[in-house]
Amino acid sequence: MQIELQRGAGRPVYLQIADQIGAAIEARRLAHGARLPAIRDLARRLQVHRDTVALAYEELAAAGRVESSVGRGTFVRAPGDPGPGGAPFEAAFSGLTESLLRFERARPRFGSADGAVPLHAIIPDPALYPVEGFRRALNRAFREHGADLLLYGDPQGHPRLREALASHLGGAGLEVGPGELLLCHGASQGISLALRLFAEPGDLIALEEPTYNNVLATVFGLGLRTAPVPMGEDGPDLAALERTLRRPEVKLLYTIPTFHNPMGLTTSLGHRRALLEVAARCGKPVVEDAYEMDLRFGERPVPPLAGLDASGLVVHLSSFSKSLFPGVRVGAIAARGRALDALLALKRATDHSDSMLLQAALARFLEEGHYERHLARLRRVLRSRCEALTGALEDALPEGARFTRPAGGYQVWVELPAGLDTSELLADAARAGVLFAPGSQFNHDGRPSCALRLSFAMADEAALRRGAQALARVVRERQRAAPAARIHI
Amino acid sequence: MQIELQRGAGRPVYLQIADQIGAAIEARRLAHGARLPAIRDLARRLQVHRDTVALAYEELAAAGRVESSVGRGTFVRAPGDPGPGGAPFEAAFSGLTESLLRFERARPRFGSADGAVPLHAIIPDPALYPVEGFRRALNRAFREHGADLLLYGDPQGHPRLREALASHLGGAGLEVGPGELLLCHGASQGISLALRLFAEPGDLIALEEPTYNNVLATVFGLGLRTAPVPMGEDGPDLAALERTLRRPEVKLLYTIPTFHNPMGLTTSLGHRRALLEVAARCGKPVVEDAYEMDLRFGERPVPPLAGLDASGLVVHLSSFSKSLFPGVRVGAIAARGRALDALLALKRATDHSDSMLLQAALARFLEEGHYERHLARLRRVLRSRCEALTGALEDALPEGARFTRPAGGYQVWVELPAGLDTSELLADAARAGVLFAPGSQFNHDGRPSCALRLSFAMADEAALRRGAQALARVVRERQRAAPAARIHI
Repeated sequence: MQIELQRGAGRPVYLQIADQIGAAIEARRLAHGARLPAIRDLARRLQVHRDTVALAYEELAAAGRVESSVGRGTFVRAPGDPGPGGAPFEAAFSGLTESLLRFERARPRFGSADGAVPLHAIIPDPALYPVEGFRRALNRAFREHGADLLLYGDPQGHPRLREALASHLGGAGLEVGPGELLLCHGASQGISLALRLFAEPGDLIALEEPTYNNVLATVFGLGLRTAPVPMGEDGPDLAALERTLRRPEVKLLYTIPTFHNPMGLTTSLGHRRALLEVAARCGKPVVEDAYEMDLRFGERPVPPLAGLDASGLVVHLSSFSKSLFPGVRVGAIAARGRALDALLALKRATDHSDSMLLQAALARFLEEGHYERHLARLRRVLRSRCEALTGALEDALPEGARFTRPAGGYQVWVELPAGLDTSELLADAARAGVLFAPGSQFNHDGRPSCALRLSFAMADEAALRRGAQALARVVRERQRAAPAARIHI
Repeated sequence: MQIELQRGAGRPVYLQIADQIGAAIEARRLAHGARLPAIRDLARRLQVHRDTVALAYEELAAAGRVESSVGRGTFVRAPGDPGPGGAPFEAAFSGLTESLLRFERARPRFGSADGAVPLHAIIPDPALYPVEGFRRALNRAFREHGADLLLYGDPQGHPRLREALASHLGGAGLEVGPGELLLCHGASQGISLALRLFAEPGDLIALEEPTYNNVLATVFGLGLRTAPVPMGEDGPDLAALERTLRRPEVKLLYTIPTFHNPMGLTTSLGHRRALLEVAARCGKPVVEDAYEMDLRFGERPVPPLAGLDASGLVVHLSSFSKSLFPGVRVGAIAARGRALDALLALKRATDHSDSMLLQAALARFLEEGHYERHLARLRRVLRSRCEALTGALEDALPEGARFTRPAGGYQVWVELPAGLDTSELLADAARAGVLFAPGSQFNHDGRPSCALRLSFAMADEAALRRGAQALARVVRERQRAAPAARIHI
């Protein structure tokens, strides 16, 4: 059989491979029981990374077309064939679970790149965690309150932490009372709860494109569908947003106005006011993900959407995962009135309540001023890392490449000259010593992208410069190479 | 207008009140702007608890029929009337959220009964928590691993805790490897994940009736529907179960075979084998909730369903919330192969991962033998409390009442003579000095029940005897009183 790959065709390469092998099985050009080429061999002949072929085979296995046997290879499966291991029970998963698994299979894998500069993930640098200060706060809280912190907690969250957080949010332009906050298990749980509040399976969610890839996993896992709103130079395109929000089946807008993930953009005050007007005209709520809001490099934050909204249109999500450390597992939802009551019911029905011990420790950490001191230091470090990365990109990237200059947070968005699919650069980049997040995983449909996200969370200045230079080398090499492949297997 | 209540009619009293007021509004017998009677007055005239009337008014408010204004009262609302506070933004919630809120509104309230013996809730007694031992384990784990415990964790759960738990489960008759465990945020999160694995909105779940009330909240919040399987003397009726599981729209069985909640029953080995055969014949997976499994009073546990199943039919849920303390927020799912992978994807898409700090502390607590020592002590205390409660019930309850004698766990199920609706006894019982969980909240449709659940989690032997005697007095008084009410408002 013949496999023909079209790069930049809009369909991911691994799916192109799976499609064509699947069609060959359907047409009996590959017989039942036939063995597929080894992953390594096919990858070499197609000039793609081994992971791409592995993904194609997994896709076929999930569809019941082939089965793998460790050490023997991958074989075309007869319909109804129970496979070599006998007939263990295989319950049918829900369609929502299957669609989530499909999304997960398409994620890039970074496992094999030991020693490469890690610019692919937004994981705060453990070298910067205020471990001792938090440990002392934890010990004091535990000694003082003992067993009270080991009971089921207030499902809304520990009252002292809500007090301390309300005061902190007030300083960032969001006036909110402790009673209007619901603490949750990281902003990721906040996203699930806020989406479920307004939307149910079959409904549409307006999201920026590109957007945070994990929110896409949550959306698909909940049976929701996406309505993409393209990103312009100053945030989501407002005319496109209004057309989208006017559709009755679109239930809300999810947006990241501050240090956008993956783009690193922060929208202006004017854009924020205009966006709120659009949402109010369309009668649709806004879920504002402010997960990096505390990480501004400069002095004055732009007020959050929720701080500009008097009508209760906005549900605001924040988190300590990026500004302190992820392991504290505390995020917060700010909402009003009936929306807060309903979010609380959803939280209770999901996992009842969170750890009061960790929340009480965090409350003390905030009350004693440790959090503000930690933020001041972290912002200085991130600003310096950001300057090192953007400086190196400016020097190294070829003509025609562009990148954003964030005012805070952890990420820079790089657009390479059109025609390059950055997911196809990943393997070469790993070999050259740098990891990045390809733009395709931030597109709603996973289609190829000529952009990529670089995170300066985990690497110091020297490593960031090395990483930028390695990336630039790989891009130049790929620009010189031939873009297409057509082979027989 | 006239309100006529029929007790034992199958429709909760508060809904009967809401129905009849709603019909009067519909028929314009109550004009727009008219003021409803004060809650206190109507409750007295109908001879029901104030909460019952408050629930009826909330039901009408949720349907947009009336609105309340603090200090002024409750008024019939004109269609389209924005209410007294101007026109704040009111986004439409999803239908799933509304159905969850409806369920939550129907829960009984226990707020006003200071000093009553708390037999209503299953909250482990804080006086029995091994606070010092856990604090030392936490400190040692934190000192040893520092910032590593503050990163995003292994979404499957801390490897050392999975090791220690696998060994513990092996001792209880469930042979499972650490790789077959997924730790989660209490068994309550485990329930959500396991239901989502197999079912999606519109699907049916087979559940025992009565069953754990919070699983009903989870089911309704996920847009699932329930298929009740009646409980017999030795667990769910197997003939009814087979009829239910044969229906294609029923996707799984959720069951509590050990120390059933609310009934306190433990099924026999024979019943367990037969149940597994039914599920296998019907090709439907079983979610086994073993949340109290460690709390047996005797020496030899009956093996869990998952321990009797070789084919991967069973997903097994366990928890430290009831056997250690709830605040550690650790539950565990045992599952095999593809089911485990899919549960892991659902967990990641829900809230990424849990606190490694708490899990590492718990691992050490288990490894050092503290957990087994704590269990030995807790079991002795619970056995003694259980004997005190059942002894007092035997002496005090009137002719015709029956109750279960649990082999472990925290709860006893009491069936009063038919014709009594236990939710209507709640207010009198609180005044007489005892709180209990009325049986209606464990019924799938919330219909009245002549049964109730008593928990011996929080009260010592003397208080348990007092509580049982108070309950018996209230039952006798109610048996003497007239059962119906018919009044005009």
